[in-house]
Amino acid sequence: MNSEKPLILVINDDGINAPGIRALIDVAKEFGNVTIVAPDKPQSGMGHAITLDSTLRIKKIEIEGTEAYACSGTPVDCVKIAVNKILPKKPNLIVSGINHGSNSSINVIYSGTMSAALEGSLENIPSIGFSLLNHSIDADFTAAKHYAQKIISQVLNNNKNKALCLNVNIPYLSTELIAGIKVCRQAKGNWKEEYDERTDPVGRTYYWLTGKFVLEDNGKDTDEWALTNNYVSVVPIQPDVTAYNLLTTIKNLENE
Amino acid sequence: MNSEKPLILVINDDGINAPGIRALIDVAKEFGNVTIVAPDKPQSGMGHAITLDSTLRIKKIEIEGTEAYACSGTPVDCVKIAVNKILPKKPNLIVSGINHGSNSSINVIYSGTMSAALEGSLENIPSIGFSLLNHSIDADFTAAKHYAQKIISQVLNNNKNKALCLNVNIPYLSTELIAGIKVCRQAKGNWKEEYDERTDPVGRTYYWLTGKFVLEDNGKDTDEWALTNNYVSVVPIQPDVTAYNLLTTIKNLENE
Repeated sequence: MNSEKPLILVINDDGINAPGIRALIDVAKEFGNVTIVAPDKPQSGMGHAITLDSTLRIKKIEIEGTEAYACSGTPVDCVKIAVNKILPKKPNLIVSGINHGSNSSINVIYSGTMSAALEGSLENIPSIGFSLLNHSIDADFTAAKHYAQKIISQVLNNNKNKALCLNVNIPYLSTELIAGIKVCRQAKGNWKEEYDERTDPVGRTYYWLTGKFVLEDNGKDTDEWALTNNYVSVVPIQPDVTAYNLLTTIKNLENE
Repeated sequence: MNSEKPLILVINDDGINAPGIRALIDVAKEFGNVTIVAPDKPQSGMGHAITLDSTLRIKKIEIEGTEAYACSGTPVDCVKIAVNKILPKKPNLIVSGINHGSNSSINVIYSGTMSAALEGSLENIPSIGFSLLNHSIDADFTAAKHYAQKIISQVLNNNKNKALCLNVNIPYLSTELIAGIKVCRQAKGNWKEEYDERTDPVGRTYYWLTGKFVLEDNGKDTDEWALTNNYVSVVPIQPDVTAYNLLTTIKNLENE
């Protein structure tokens, strides 16, 4: 092991067996020594969940010759146990994904992929989450790998901000058709939910969540605008959710 | 049912049988018609997790004469299914909690209680999460109820902002010793994690997450400052996690 090379932790939320993490491992290996710590099963939509009331287990495996650990917990658990228990030193970079499906706009708060990256940045480790706008297990990750390579190179070589966290979304297009990279803000949008109601074989009702994303933002400086216009979107994110614009408006609560 | 009274949805993350939700139901009933939709088991630390890969079930029950539903999902699932499937109309207010334990500072992003409130505000329903700084199952909720009553009254009567979301934390003190209410920003802080490593009866290793909160903020305008100084802290929150201060700094990524 070459000690001069950066140590890179690779993680995801689709589970250690997802094709997307293999694509990201390939790219990460070009830049340093790689360790993989990822959920032992799919953990999409887990947001910033952590395991408080039950135990965690980790199983050491190997993926294409690289040290890997399958963890029974959530994506955020994976980051915590990797940094605090598994890795011999603090990694120089955490990369999360490549997620099968978009994490733009409001999806960022539901996303295990992005919550893992945010958790990394809370540990003062530069962290990048990558997502491809295609859910298919057979998706082609060629263009996503190309842009992941460019962004990882830039962050490893030029970034001085240890708490940097980037939400990178990549349109599902061939590399030549992608217009470039846009740095953006998170678009305002929301899911309009429906519940598909069904009856199980013993007559009890159950529900499946379904829904449709609705963009509520006309800005040309957003991730949704960038993606619609064939750009790779890069949104820097951080964990302070204070609504600063309301601090004055609600000041009258102090008179209660 | 009096149709002029506001409809209030009560939810939590400690589960439908937690004492804290009973305290909040008592307060909510003073203001309107109450429906409870809460997880059928404890869901602390679930953050903004949603159930994507499995089904949801709801069971209609009654709590002290009030319509209630125990849901198999996460706190955010409870809000989605309540608003989209269970309730006859959009509620006028969502109250979440009273959580057993603090959700100040960085805890807000791990908290199911606060993620449920944020989900409510995404649906354009004013939402308030309440947390008491005591984890005990036997905690005294008297002061917490007193302040919940004041804040709910103010929001129902004077708030014009449908997307309002408040993170309210209440010190564990008697009502007379609480200094009042402070509107604040989220303090910067983080958990320093450790993992307690144990061996199960068949010789396999497992881990329990343990940790210590570390405040990284000297501001006197934060929730942590307010709570340390015996105030009830009220932080308005919102779902945009863009790091606006970095948009210019990382612009060079566009040249890649």
